[in-house]
Amino acid sequence: MIESIRVIGSGRVGSAVAARLEERGVDLAADEPELLLLCVPDRAIAEVAAGIDQGPWIAHVSGATPLAALAPHTRRFSVHPLQTFTRTRGPEQIDGAYAACTAESHEARALAFEVARTLGLAPFELADGKRSLYHAGAALASNYLVTIYRAAAQLFEAAGAPPEGLVPLMRRTIDNGFELTGPIARGDWDTVENHLEAIREGRPELEPVYRVLAEATLP
Amino acid sequence: MIESIRVIGSGRVGSAVAARLEERGVDLAADEPELLLLCVPDRAIAEVAAGIDQGPWIAHVSGATPLAALAPHTRRFSVHPLQTFTRTRGPEQIDGAYAACTAESHEARALAFEVARTLGLAPFELADGKRSLYHAGAALASNYLVTIYRAAAQLFEAAGAPPEGLVPLMRRTIDNGFELTGPIARGDWDTVENHLEAIREGRPELEPVYRVLAEATLP
Repeated sequence: MIESIRVIGSGRVGSAVAARLEERGVDLAADEPELLLLCVPDRAIAEVAAGIDQGPWIAHVSGATPLAALAPHTRRFSVHPLQTFTRTRGPEQIDGAYAACTAESHEARALAFEVARTLGLAPFELADGKRSLYHAGAALASNYLVTIYRAAAQLFEAAGAPPEGLVPLMRRTIDNGFELTGPIARGDWDTVENHLEAIREGRPELEPVYRVLAEATLP
Repeated sequence: MIESIRVIGSGRVGSAVAARLEERGVDLAADEPELLLLCVPDRAIAEVAAGIDQGPWIAHVSGATPLAALAPHTRRFSVHPLQTFTRTRGPEQIDGAYAACTAESHEARALAFEVARTLGLAPFELADGKRSLYHAGAALASNYLVTIYRAAAQLFEAAGAPPEGLVPLMRRTIDNGFELTGPIARGDWDTVENHLEAIREGRPELEPVYRVLAEATLP
């Protein structure tokens, strides 16, 4: 059982992680912590890691950064909380999320899983070389969900409909296990063509988004 | 207060609507109902409407279909529940959703709002000519949410990561009011380029989706 962790960085993720570890009784202020957990911006990881004396375990919480960024340390791993964080929430925003754990030894993997579980995350193993593909998937699901909401909200505004009406629709789409309904599911191409025509007329800048997604939705 | 409605059609929407109206004490079996509510496929609306004697109110629940499809009836309107429906849920799936109400007179509009509220929907007015733009927005938000989940799940599978990990991430993105996080929000183009490279190598068919959404996400 890991008893002392020094969290470096107090951004969105670092604040939530430190608060959760404190809740779990982990010593965050030990002089010689067992683990240094870097919650710094991706670009700062290599520099911060290089400035730390070798000895304790070191880990980062980045989804996109390879373990090599932690060089010259070899007692290293990463735990990426698969979640979007906001400053307006506390450690409870960690609950229910998964964690991608990357490690190079059995010992490091066991420790990564332990840290993830201590945080309240459901760990899974991710190969270091698959990190970009994984992170691209996470960005697609989270960041581009924002993008399609914004695009849909613009169409609603142009139609005089309230964008907040999209929220229960999007939540239920997830609740229903991403079951596809609507014109493409019905093979109703007339309606799809009508959408494209209306978009070209009302919000032409959104046509490429609609068109590429329609094509990607085809069975 | 409307007391008798005949629901025509028993698909996903018709079943939920009829069950809800029954819960609300509306007479569904009257010989001369005040309103005929067409819950039939979009393409069948005009034919079904044309086959009904003029007299009572008539309405449809389609998002994409103009009121003209209800000709020759003039006592007409539409109420579109802005929700995705599944056969595995009952009338409770209506709760919390909005409804687009389209009408051509004050009387028809008042009745459309009344029917929406009786169903448990939050009504708003939608102009008949803006219906395609509105429906395109709804399809973008709901159907293409399925598309980006599927694309992200494919990237996860290629990376050996569990697609179910995407669900808490997507739910929280909505809970957080669609706050944009991730590489584009940070202006981290190196990570975006790494994503594209990984996609080209691992799932090249998804590159257009990722690319068009990245471009649409730019401020």
